Amino acid sequence: MKYAFAKRVRHLQSSAVRDILKVVGQGDVISFAGGLPDDELFPMQGIEEAFSRVFAAGKGSALQYAETEGFRPLRETIIERMKNKKGITNYSSDEVLVTTGSQQAIDLFSRVMLGPGDVILTEDPTYLAALQVFNSYEANIIAVDSDDDGMLPDDLELKMKQYKPKTVYVVPTFSNPAGRVWSLERRKALIRLAHKYNVVVFEDDPYGELQFSPDEKYTPLAALDDGSHVLYTSTFSKIAVPALRTGWIVGPYQVIRMMSQAKQANDLHTNSLSQQALYQLCTNFDLDGHIQSLISVYRSRMEAMVDCLQKADLPELSFVKPKGGMFLWVELSERLNTTILLNEAVKNGVAYVPGEPFYAGLAKKNTMRLNFTHSSPERIEKGINALVDVLSNNVEQQEHFFV
Amino acid sequence: MKYAFAKRVRHLQSSAVRDILKVVGQGDVISFAGGLPDDELFPMQGIEEAFSRVFAAGKGSALQYAETEGFRPLRETIIERMKNKKGITNYSSDEVLVTTGSQQAIDLFSRVMLGPGDVILTEDPTYLAALQVFNSYEANIIAVDSDDDGMLPDDLELKMKQYKPKTVYVVPTFSNPAGRVWSLERRKALIRLAHKYNVVVFEDDPYGELQFSPDEKYTPLAALDDGSHVLYTSTFSKIAVPALRTGWIVGPYQVIRMMSQAKQANDLHTNSLSQQALYQLCTNFDLDGHIQSLISVYRSRMEAMVDCLQKADLPELSFVKPKGGMFLWVELSERLNTTILLNEAVKNGVAYVPGEPFYAGLAKKNTMRLNFTHSSPERIEKGINALVDVLSNNVEQQEHFFV
Repeated sequence: MKYAFAKRVRHLQSSAVRDILKVVGQGDVISFAGGLPDDELFPMQGIEEAFSRVFAAGKGSALQYAETEGFRPLRETIIERMKNKKGITNYSSDEVLVTTGSQQAIDLFSRVMLGPGDVILTEDPTYLAALQVFNSYEANIIAVDSDDDGMLPDDLELKMKQYKPKTVYVVPTFSNPAGRVWSLERRKALIRLAHKYNVVVFEDDPYGELQFSPDEKYTPLAALDDGSHVLYTSTFSKIAVPALRTGWIVGPYQVIRMMSQAKQANDLHTNSLSQQALYQLCTNFDLDGHIQSLISVYRSRMEAMVDCLQKADLPELSFVKPKGGMFLWVELSERLNTTILLNEAVKNGVAYVPGEPFYAGLAKKNTMRLNFTHSSPERIEKGINALVDVLSNNVEQQEHFFV
Repeated sequence: MKYAFAKRVRHLQSSAVRDILKVVGQGDVISFAGGLPDDELFPMQGIEEAFSRVFAAGKGSALQYAETEGFRPLRETIIERMKNKKGITNYSSDEVLVTTGSQQAIDLFSRVMLGPGDVILTEDPTYLAALQVFNSYEANIIAVDSDDDGMLPDDLELKMKQYKPKTVYVVPTFSNPAGRVWSLERRKALIRLAHKYNVVVFEDDPYGELQFSPDEKYTPLAALDDGSHVLYTSTFSKIAVPALRTGWIVGPYQVIRMMSQAKQANDLHTNSLSQQALYQLCTNFDLDGHIQSLISVYRSRMEAMVDCLQKADLPELSFVKPKGGMFLWVELSERLNTTILLNEAVKNGVAYVPGEPFYAGLAKKNTMRLNFTHSSPERIEKGINALVDVLSNNVEQQEHFFV
């Protein structure tokens, strides 16, 4: 039988990241592909104790259907944490929606906001699975010119005037995939323009707490706004564990309320046993200490990767050293197409994500995203060497060919 | 600021069921409203042990990101259970998608199938939160004439010809809200027509295992089909616990694959710690024994509710005694509007769900859905008496008025 799918799934393809993950996960390939935290660093004992506390309370209601908006004490804890860690003070626990990972926050926001043809402005490159979501709602994605400090205000204003976008999607702190951090000026410019042109900003901040230099301060857009124009989403996946699929979003009550109704239709509510356990984890476990130890390990892995790449001395290879997060974004000689080279790299024992699918506009095919959090420094060295082998062989071949 | 929501959320309203639940949950009202299992009957110890087993294995990978399709051993267990319990043999574990509750299965199916204006045929009344989903994808919902044995084949064929529907949504076993069970003939007729007109059938079976008479056999549509025209969804919410938000769907590989891609965009994957725990529960706990004890308690509560209603001897009250599931559907004098009466009922200490929002077509406003699984027989008696008070007062007043 031929199944007549809806038009909106035309664009729906399995994400390159996850398809690679599937194949790579099975063999002995060193993978810099997935956006994975390190399993070994998960707070297993803390999580186990958190669940024990919930079970010890012995209440059947812990396992019952629950409110769509989320477990109230967890929402209060989230508000408190955002206040203390991020300076985000505009929201009360009524303006938090707990989501099935922050991926669902992106999806629900798009569901209530984006009709076919509606314009959304994004950085370029940007988070691949967000592009997937926007495409699935048949939105019109327009890339805004950016540099290492964030979107260029002139181009942003031009495109706000020209396209009358519904929203702007940004990952301003340790972006995925580019590892960028927006400057304060650029952040303020975005907020100013959002107010001027009445555009909602969607701030995706999964990595913000994985900050390598303790002295710098990266103020979230949500802390620069007055509570009317920014939706801010984050997650427990990077600072605690991904398996529990628990994220959250805060923003103007009207939007959160609409998203909550969409969530009711989507999955009724987020796993509430996990929400209760995460509340226990935040309350009875040194989550901040845990995050500090993550940062210290991840920073040293990032340094190891940077060292290897620098030693490799590959012509035309460039990257910006990440100030946090999980990714290193590499630009190569324009003669190299990373999508084509992936197969050869995997055969040589190393995987990455080609840069192409991260672009909303014209893709730079000579780019790749490398994850540095999931491998030990030893494996990083081995993997980067294997990668550099493939790259330099191909640059030479190409040179040869072009001569 | 005025937020410009997408057109598709026009229909999106908080479900009556859940709004009532919220208010009722706070006071001392006896609630027959929510579709809740009884907290006291949850297999707390089984669930706790299941989580302990997962933690005892001590693998960090248990807490890592996981495959969108679901935890493979759980998918295999689901296939095995469906084979043994339901005679559903057409599917392998590649054709199962684990979902964040079966609500998400309804949502993902609609997302990949239903474009604006696409026709979906339903029973009438039918599951309220499914109607919400179909509306949110701007589908055109058409009700098929039904009686206590299921959809009338003549009307079904007429509407398949006339509307060329994308799909037919049915809850053939212990339907929500009407508590109906389709006859085998009607089931076969639906499958025959689905093949004749090339229409996909979506079979929603959350309650099938809560069967009160052990001797009867209700064959799922998925067991009558050849694997090409039926999608079948069920859940752990009613036989284990709702808090873990774990359901599943099986069906033709092409559709499941497309839904899995939609799920990737929606929430990446279902909580995988819970999936592993449910696998342990299925493997190391007497789930079937547990279900038998649920059935015995729920059946006696249903009997208690039926007795009370029969004793009340309210003129023009009618219902069909449920053969399973969680609900009793009541039809009253046409002079009574249950939506209007709800407030008075709640003031008198009892809540129900008015029948109106369950209708896709013309609503019978003199209907209500009563849940019998969440209250003890004593509270059922007290609650039904309070309800009958309100109803008989109002029937009398109306009579008085009409004289």
